[in-house]
Parts: sequence; structure tokens; C-alpha cells
Amino acid sequence: MARYKLLISYDGTLYAGWQLQPNATSIQGLVESALERFFKSPLRVTGASRTDSGVHALGQVAHFTTDLEFECSALLKALNGMLPYDVRILSLELIGDDFHAQYSSTGKEYHYHVCMERIIAPFHRLYRHHFYYPSSLPLMREAAKKFIGTHDFASFTNAGSTVTSTVRTITRLDIIEEPGGIRFEFEGNGFLYKMVRNIVGLLLDIGRGKRAIEEIEPLFEAKDRRKAAMAAPGKGLFLIKVHYASKES
Amino acid sequence: MARYKLLISYDGTLYAGWQLQPNATSIQGLVESALERFFKSPLRVTGASRTDSGVHALGQVAHFTTDLEFECSALLKALNGMLPYDVRILSLELIGDDFHAQYSSTGKEYHYHVCMERIIAPFHRLYRHHFYYPSSLPLMREAAKKFIGTHDFASFTNAGSTVTSTVRTITRLDIIEEPGGIRFEFEGNGFLYKMVRNIVGLLLDIGRGKRAIEEIEPLFEAKDRRKAAMAAPGKGLFLIKVHYASKES
Repeated sequence: MARYKLLISYDGTLYAGWQLQPNATSIQGLVESALERFFKSPLRVTGASRTDSGVHALGQVAHFTTDLEFECSALLKALNGMLPYDVRILSLELIGDDFHAQYSSTGKEYHYHVCMERIIAPFHRLYRHHFYYPSSLPLMREAAKKFIGTHDFASFTNAGSTVTSTVRTITRLDIIEEPGGIRFEFEGNGFLYKMVRNIVGLLLDIGRGKRAIEEIEPLFEAKDRRKAAMAAPGKGLFLIKVHYASKES
Repeated sequence: MARYKLLISYDGTLYAGWQLQPNATSIQGLVESALERFFKSPLRVTGASRTDSGVHALGQVAHFTTDLEFECSALLKALNGMLPYDVRILSLELIGDDFHAQYSSTGKEYHYHVCMERIIAPFHRLYRHHFYYPSSLPLMREAAKKFIGTHDFASFTNAGSTVTSTVRTITRLDIIEEPGGIRFEFEGNGFLYKMVRNIVGLLLDIGRGKRAIEEIEPLFEAKDRRKAAMAAPGKGLFLIKVHYASKES
């Protein structure tokens, strides 16, 4: 028995997200197909984060277990040779079988990019949400503080989630100016389905004056997704890094 | 009579280059189609640089002339509304009818990006040449110096060019390290068909030790394209800026 840990980067534009699903191409499905071709038998891959349709990853982590142990660099090369160029395994290593990509994770980092210029550059069209209402950065930063800490994020997750608890801790939420727009940087111990995009949607609405900071507290209390703002689109979201306790990271 | 100057950015991945051609989609063709729909009559657009298939532009310049004068911001918005998102007119202005996008140009700047890592990131796959031979940056920089100044670049242009003189002046050729690779920055008074890509191809061959710096002088003298190196692929090349005398820039 050998367990492998994978670090994967992908451009999510053409895919239905990480998670395997019928009648659509998923990143998990592509990686499992490559593994099946290599090992000549079906293998299950477990990802750390269920990224949605159109969402990108610089550092998704996944694991799989097999009876056959192969030399890592040869396996890495073979798998990349069977994957499309918009999905790359950046590294592959043997890891203890107590490692679990999802359950061993101690936290994650996501970035969300927004283009705030009148005209979105061709090179950003697939990687930034285009939102060019006049917006207040100080107001958004003030509102962002309300999300830091431990909260019940039930109002900020969408139906489709299977988790039992909706309590999560956000340790960092920075809004950083970048050429042509802004970038939201989220770090936390875990994120619910569409949670980052729902928070970004609300912060953008607050920044343009459509919603008020005072609405955030009642939203936490309401625990009702329908009262929150529109989720920002998937294409602006990047999974940057999955954290593990130092032993495994 | 009104002449308009356009600043255009495009992701060249899906197109057969700037120049209009039969049985293929060109950037010029897309812009001319948008103009024809707007003005209800065919219009010719003249570009500063004939970028090749797969080549990108941050700052292509073009002009067209029409009998009807429209308000610039309305025209800009209408044209972008008729163009695909991988082609954007960044600005549009009225300009004197002595302005000519190509002939008034006093120089151009191109960048060429090379990924030198073993595995190319998904987000660079369409925008960088993947070249991961162990290479010497000092050797490439030494060789690059030989191209600066005024030379007959006949050995560095491909058949298909219609120019009469092959003498050009390169004022700057820098090789800059960037995350994951290097970037060649070219500035000069003009560039022949495939000239940047042919020079990059030779410099990369010199960097990896396949060709020697001493071969450059004889190449200039030979005036024979067949003796030079393979042109580097189009996807790594970006037209950054077209220069004009201060009056028009």
C-alpha cells in the first residue's frame, strides 16, 4: 500500500469544478482517468477543496492510495503527459497513510480578483470578476473586519452543502489593491460551499453603497442564505494553498 | 472626414494574427466587421504591427477614416460590444488625418516570455514558450548585445515579408528574470516579419550551448534565413507599445 500526495494547479475555465459528476468534465475526473490509465485499474482521488465550476487553483492538494508503488518523478511525468495543459500536477510525493487531503487540512487560503476598470483586459477576462461601480475601499475594509473570527456562516453558504456544522473561523481577510482592481485574500480553518463568493458579493455591494455594514450582524443571526447578496462569479476565485500541520505540509 | 486612432489589446490564442486573410479569423477582420456593423458600410483598418498567429498585444495601434464623426466614448462602447472579450479596444480618439498607425510610428516594444521550469503552470500555457533546457543567462545576455544597433536582419526574417530594406535598428534588448522564467524586452525602430521570434530562438540556442556567440556575425553577413535558428513560437510574444513622435503619442 502506498499513499501519494499531489499538488495540483488548474485553470478552471473549461471545467465543472473539482468534484466528479455525471455528464460533465471535472478536475477530479481527469486526474482519476489518468491514474486509471497508468495503474490499469480505477482509483479514487480525494481533494482538499471542492472548487466550483470556473474556479481556479494554484495549489489544490489531493491524495490517492494504491497497491503499487512507483518512483515519484516517473509517475508525475506520466500523469502530466495524460492530462490537458490546463491541469498540471506540480508535485507528487509518497506520504504516510494517516494523511488525508481534506481531513488533515488545518486551513486554506483563497484569493478573489476583481477588475474595477471600465474595460476589462483580454488577459483578465477569465480570471477576474468585472465590477466597475464606483466603490469605497475603506468601507469594504471596514465591513471585512466583521467576518474575521469564528461565526456561524449559514447565511453565506448555498444549498448543496452536506456539512453538519456551518461554524467556521476566518483568520485573515485582506483587501489588496492590484493593477486595475482589487484582490480579496481569505485565510481560515475551512470554507463552506460558495462561502468566499457570497462574502465577496456582499462586500462589493457594501462598497458601492447598495448594502450597509449594519446588515452584516443580522445576516449572521438570520442563518438564511436568501437574505445575503449575490455570490460573486466563480472565475475570480483561486484556491491558493491548503495548510497542514507542519509534519505534512 | 474623421480619422480615429485605436489602442487595442488582444489575446491572440484563437486568431490567425492581426492581418486580414481568407478562411481564417484575424483581429483586423473582427475590428473591421464591428466597424461595418456600426457604420453600415465597409471600412478599412490599418494596424501598426502585423502580429502573427498566436501573438498577443497589450498595445496595438490602428487607425481608420470615416465620413461620419461620432462621439468617441459612445463609439468605443458600441465597438467593444460587438467584439469578443479576447479583443478589447482600450481607447479611441479623433486624430489628424496625417496620422498613420504604421508609417507615423517611430518605434515599437515587444516582450517575449519563456517558462524555464520543468512543469509549465496552467496559467502560462498560452502566454509563454516552454523551454527548460539548462541555460546560461550570462551567455544569452552577452549574445543579445550583438543585436543592438543597426544591422541588416535579412537572416532573421522569414519569407513572406514584402519590405524592400531589411536594415533595422534595435535600441534595447534586455533579458529579465521573472518568476518561473525569463522575459526578452525588445525596442527598436521597426521589426521584420518573425524577426523577434527568430532572434529569441537563436539566443535560446546559444544559452543552452547548441550554438555559439561567434556564429552571430557570420549570420548577419550571410543574409540567409535558412542558417539561423528555429523561430520561437508565437504564443510567448506580446506587442507592448507602439511609439509615435510626441505630437501623436
